[in-house]
Parts: sequence; structure tokens; C-alpha cells
Amino acid sequence: MRMYDIIEKKRDGGELTKDEISFVVKGVTDGSIPDYQISALLMGIFFRGMSEKETLELTLDMAHSGETADLSGIKGDVADKHSTGGVGDKTSLIAAPIAAALGVKIAKMSGRGLGHTGGTIDKLESIKGFSTTLSREAFINQVNNIGIAIIGQSKNLVPADKKLYALRDVTATVNSIGLIASSIMSKKLASGAKNIVLDVKTGSGAFMKKLPDSIALAEKMVKIGKGAGRNIVALITDMDKPLGNYIGNSLEIKEVIEVLKGGGPEDLKEESFAIAANMVSLAKGADPEEALTLVKGAVADGSAFEKFKEFVAAQGGDVSYIDNPEKFPQAKYASQIRAKKDGYISHMQTEDIGICASLLGAGRTKADDKIDFSAGIILNKKTGDFVKSGEVIATLYTNDESTLDSAERKFISAISYSETKPEKRNTVIKKVM
Amino acid sequence: MRMYDIIEKKRDGGELTKDEISFVVKGVTDGSIPDYQISALLMGIFFRGMSEKETLELTLDMAHSGETADLSGIKGDVADKHSTGGVGDKTSLIAAPIAAALGVKIAKMSGRGLGHTGGTIDKLESIKGFSTTLSREAFINQVNNIGIAIIGQSKNLVPADKKLYALRDVTATVNSIGLIASSIMSKKLASGAKNIVLDVKTGSGAFMKKLPDSIALAEKMVKIGKGAGRNIVALITDMDKPLGNYIGNSLEIKEVIEVLKGGGPEDLKEESFAIAANMVSLAKGADPEEALTLVKGAVADGSAFEKFKEFVAAQGGDVSYIDNPEKFPQAKYASQIRAKKDGYISHMQTEDIGICASLLGAGRTKADDKIDFSAGIILNKKTGDFVKSGEVIATLYTNDESTLDSAERKFISAISYSETKPEKRNTVIKKVM
Repeated sequence: MRMYDIIEKKRDGGELTKDEISFVVKGVTDGSIPDYQISALLMGIFFRGMSEKETLELTLDMAHSGETADLSGIKGDVADKHSTGGVGDKTSLIAAPIAAALGVKIAKMSGRGLGHTGGTIDKLESIKGFSTTLSREAFINQVNNIGIAIIGQSKNLVPADKKLYALRDVTATVNSIGLIASSIMSKKLASGAKNIVLDVKTGSGAFMKKLPDSIALAEKMVKIGKGAGRNIVALITDMDKPLGNYIGNSLEIKEVIEVLKGGGPEDLKEESFAIAANMVSLAKGADPEEALTLVKGAVADGSAFEKFKEFVAAQGGDVSYIDNPEKFPQAKYASQIRAKKDGYISHMQTEDIGICASLLGAGRTKADDKIDFSAGIILNKKTGDFVKSGEVIATLYTNDESTLDSAERKFISAISYSETKPEKRNTVIKKVM
Repeated sequence: MRMYDIIEKKRDGGELTKDEISFVVKGVTDGSIPDYQISALLMGIFFRGMSEKETLELTLDMAHSGETADLSGIKGDVADKHSTGGVGDKTSLIAAPIAAALGVKIAKMSGRGLGHTGGTIDKLESIKGFSTTLSREAFINQVNNIGIAIIGQSKNLVPADKKLYALRDVTATVNSIGLIASSIMSKKLASGAKNIVLDVKTGSGAFMKKLPDSIALAEKMVKIGKGAGRNIVALITDMDKPLGNYIGNSLEIKEVIEVLKGGGPEDLKEESFAIAANMVSLAKGADPEEALTLVKGAVADGSAFEKFKEFVAAQGGDVSYIDNPEKFPQAKYASQIRAKKDGYISHMQTEDIGICASLLGAGRTKADDKIDFSAGIILNKKTGDFVKSGEVIATLYTNDESTLDSAERKFISAISYSETKPEKRNTVIKKVM
């Protein structure tokens, strides 16, 4: 088999066979296919797309290109969730302990963020003492004992995807729905959970900005998941404004605590509860409506919050921070952003708000950047709110005063005003199953 | 400027600016753009094509990416010709001395063949003593003195094309008409001639197998040539059967001699004379019909043949071989191919006949393969001829007996028969100007 022929076949619109796809994934993983041939194939795929069968094969082969999680030692129904990423998205840390409180096993491997703010792993590490590294045995034991463990991804999880992604990133071939779907799903499949809830964001802060693209991606991923024998649903959720009011690592942990204690903003609650309910529904075979009632009950009766504390403690975190969130170190510098005029906030360019948080120190632009856990943004007002000129919309936090100027400008330019109230967008827009 | 943005722009169907194309050609030449980005761009160009403006810019930038021939020291009108390559194509060695005999200056840089048989340079080197390396000064002097010199291409001629071609060759992006046109024309422009005749082959032995593709390529190249201020025409010529009856390096020199002495097969004469006439017509501003009469006259009166001998002698070749072609070493082994049945030869799969010649030792498959100058094929019958079962169609020649078996099979499978006489194809099909 020759890579040349595979490139040519895809270029001419042919469907690659299982063997051809295996040849590519193997060659990508072991380095036997040169980058210039891989990138030519990627551009061919960009133009020609991949059939359902090709996408599934690619995903399965990539999932098996490195280590895969063996969750067979876990007693009970394991569920996982994945978000395509957005600004202020802390739903994993709310939905996972809720589902665990309801008896679903959570054995989750999460990533670090490269972008606006840290990933789930970074947020957890903002809790003093929290360890995101567990041995395989300790990981399985913890899930069996308390129902939940969240650790960092193995470096050797899906190496083929790492290589392909790095090439896509520099050859303008990231935006291929088939390649995105197989990249995400290969990691989810390798992570081992039988039940998977996908949270596909849509809007100005999402990777997929347009609703039809978000739906297409969700449908492709659900098909892959089903093709791989998993129980899977996808929620299409709004990312045309930040999710919740807190953006930044320890700031987001504070908002997680609020929600688990029964408070917090409506959009964040609605979305987190929907994700948790779908995890319960898939894992336990429960009716989604009933599952939502259970979810709300687990928050109301405090069992979800207790589960979160149990989880933090099990991984070495200082639970006093969870009981007394004011213990989280506060950033040295704060800057209030005020409304320029009377009117409704008509739109928030959400990606720019994410970049603002990153400028403040909450995110990474390079893999070895250090995150400032206390940096970030607290929003007082969001899209649809009426503001008076001079009223505080948000406060920016950082330990690096020199970042404030550009961060302020970024934030201010992200906000649009109008005299009329903008149409409300739903938080959970659609369910794909 | 970032290569990423250029790839993305082309991917999305945008027209690259002059500066963007210069950036690419510079980065390809100096190695500052990695291969995987170049190949992604090439695949983008494969799908999106290039505008006339882009093609011209790319060609001009490539032409200037390395050494360019300075022909300003030549007194008189310089003409060049280029063939897209075919089996038995020895027209350069006929047309060039004819045109030179008629006062056109021929300062030609030719390539070595990588494929069926050697290139013009290899064929010339089959003449004992012939040197294809001349200093710049000796080259210009020879053209001024006798009107003709043919040397090997400088290694540093159009390095950007060398790099691009090497990548296209392994990423299935060779077959892009814009890229082909700019590859060929960049070399022709760098070679410096003011007047250019292109010979674009079409048919089963050509790079472009279909007539519309051949015409499209010819039109693109003629536009580039005019855009670069050259006088240029393209002839579309038949390559659905080998050209002439001799295939192989010294064998083709023998057929060149035959034609220059007034003999030789009709198709080869017609095509070579048409090329020569167009060179004369462009360089001297003569009417094409009149030019053809002059061409035929130069053959009839022996001046073309004398010019050829003068040329061979000037470059150190042993002229006694030209006067006595039987002096060329004969291959040790010969194998006659006989007709399988009575009937007309309805088709010759010409590329396969080229491969047969290559198997016999007449061509290279790798750049450092050694050519067997006396290996090749002499055809007794071609498409349209009636043959009787058992009649000799062709004789294969080689010095490596072990090649005969597969070469015979290749040749036999290339021949189709029919009971009715196939329709005649013209040798010179169309002129694009």
C-alpha cells in the first residue's frame, strides 16, 4: 500500500477502505509517513469530506493508536461528558459530582486548556493540594469507592490525533467537520466510558460559530459513538455569551460551589443540570425528565455538594477552600468596566472575552505558559441585561498590572449595546441523539 | 505574512496577490516554509486552481528563483522549443538544426529524461565524444559562430520548481494544469529565448491523455509566455502512437539523421517540420506557410544536415557516426514481436510502449540509473497498418537479456487489433497562438 495512492483516491473523491485508513493512522503514529503527505491528505479530506464509514474507521483507529483506558475494573455504569469548549464553561465540575451523587460512576480524564482559560484539570489544580495524577489502580479504586475521579489525560492517549492535530493547526485544515469529530471522539472512545454526553457549543465564543455547523458536528460525533457501541447524546448549547458569570480558574471553582450549594446563575444551572440529567439517563436508563428531577434533588438535598467535597478530599485537595471559598487567593489588581451608555447589552463577542481572560493570565497561549489561577473576569451583566451609563458591567482580575490596559480594551470592544432588548437565546438549544 | 493565511485563502477560493506568491516562492526556494505547508497549499491549488494572474506571477517568480540564462550576447533572433514529452519524440534534434540552417539562433538547454527513454541530452550523449557541458562563454560563442548549441540544464535553473515538483510528485498534486503550465514555462522563461514553440502532446503516450486537457494546458502556457513578453505558439500533436519508428537513444539519433537527409517516416517529418517552421516564423516574422517551404528546402538542399554535423562537431561529437550511423554500437540481444492475427493495428497503448523501452534499458526510473544507449525498439508497423499473422511488428533491442521477457509481454499487451481500418489521427492536431 502506498500513501500516494491513498492521497490520490481521496483527492478524486473515493472512499478509503478500512485497510487504507489503518495504514494512514499507523504511519502517522509511527512517523513512517512524511508530514507533507499527511498534510496533502488532510487538505484532500477538507475538500472531499469523509463518509460515515471512513469517519468511524479513522476514529476507531486513532482511539487505538496509543494507550486506552481499561475501565473494566469499575463496578457500575460509567459516564463521561465532553465539551467542545467555551468561555466560563465549568459544567464538568458541576455535572460530574451530581451524577456521581446519583450513583453514576465518573472515571474522567480531562485536558489542560490551551486558549482562553485553563481546562478542567487547571481549574481543579487551583484548589490547594489537589492532585490530578493518580496511578491506574488508585484511579479505579477511587471510582469504586466514592464514585468519581478526574485525572489529567495520559500523554500517550491517542498519539495519532496529537500528530494530526498539530499538522491541521498549521495547514488550515482544522475546520473539517469529519476531522474535528474523529479527533474529539477518538479521545472519548480511548477514555473508555460506555455512556457519553457531548456538549457542543454554538455562537461567538464557540469553535463552531454557526448553529448548522454545530448540529452537523454533533450528529457526526453521535454517529461515531453509536458506531463504536457507546450510548451517546449531544446537547447543542449557547456560547454566544459566556456561561455563568465567573471566568478564570479559581473564580470558576467558586461558581461551581455556588451552583452545587443551590445558587448560581440560571444559564449555568440549566446547562449543567441538563448535562448531569443526560448522564444519569444514559447510564441508568432513566427517563430524561425523571433524571432531571433527580439531578435537582441531588443539589437541593446537598448530596451533590457533599460528593464534590468527598472528591476534592480524595484527590488531596484542601476541603476548607470548598467550605470557605474566600480562602482562594484574590488577584492583586482589579479593574471595573463600566457601561458607556444606557441601553441593553445586545451582544458579547464571547471569543474576545475569552481572549481578555487569557490576557489577564487565566489561560495559556503556549503549552508551557504558567496560569494565574486567580486571574479572570466576574460579569455583573450579560447579553439581554439593561445597563445604565457608568454602571459596572464586569470586574477584571489579574496579578500582572501591565495586562490591564489591553485586557480592558479587549473587553470593552467585545460589548455591543442597543436600545431594544435583544431576542433571548436558549441555553440548551437542541438535543441530538 | 504567514503561510497559514495563504493556505487558508487559497483553500477558500481566494486569489493570491503578487506579494503572497513571491512569499511562497521565496520560502520554497530558501526552505523557510516547511514541506507540509507547501503540500497543503499545492492540494488547495489542485482543488481551487489559479487565475491567469496567479499563474503568471507564480511562473515569473519561479523563473527568477535561481540562475537565468543571459542570452543578450547572442546576435540574432533566438528561438527555443519545448515538448511535454512522448515516446519516440526526437523533434528537437531535427527542428533545431533546420531552424539554425535558416538563420534562427538556437541556444537550448535541455533536460535528461526520467521516464520511458532518455531526454535530448541523453540522446546526444549517445554520440561518441559529444559534450553537453559548455561554459557560459563557450555556449554563447558557439551560438554566435554556428547558430546552434544544446547543453544540459544548469542545476540551479528554477530551484523553486525542482522543490515544488518533487513535492507534487509524492502528494498527488502533479495533475493541476496551472501548476504544470507554470512548471514548464518557468524553465522556458529562465532559459531566455524570445521565441518559443511548444509541442503539447495528446493521447495514450502523453502526460495529458485527453485532447481538451492538452488544449487547456497549451492555452495556459501561451498566455503565460505572452504575459512574460515572449513570442509563443503551441502545437497540439498526436501521441496516441509513438512518433516515428525508432525509440531509444542512439536509435533515435539514427532516425534524426534519416529525416535530416530527406528520408524518415511521414509523421515524424510532418511534426518536426511544423515545429521548425513555427520557430522560423516567430523568430523571423515570416509567414508560417512560407516558413514551411523554407524548412523543406533546408532539408532538401542538405543545409540542415550539414548544420547538424557542424553542431555535433562543435560539441566534440565524432561526426563519422553521423555520416555512418552503422557505427553506433548495436545492442547484443534482439527480439522480434510478431502479429498475433491478421488485421489492422487499431491502437497502441503508447505509454506502455515507452515503459517497454525503459524496461529494455533505454530510460531511467531513478535519477542515477544508467542508460543503455543502444537499447530500444524499432517499429515496423504502427496504428492503422494492416498486418498478417506472424508478420514482424517490431524488434526490441537490449544488452540485458533478462529484461526481454517482461518487455515483450509489455509490448504485446500494448497492441490492439481490429478488422476495420481505424480512423486516422492527424499528427499536428491544432495550433494555439
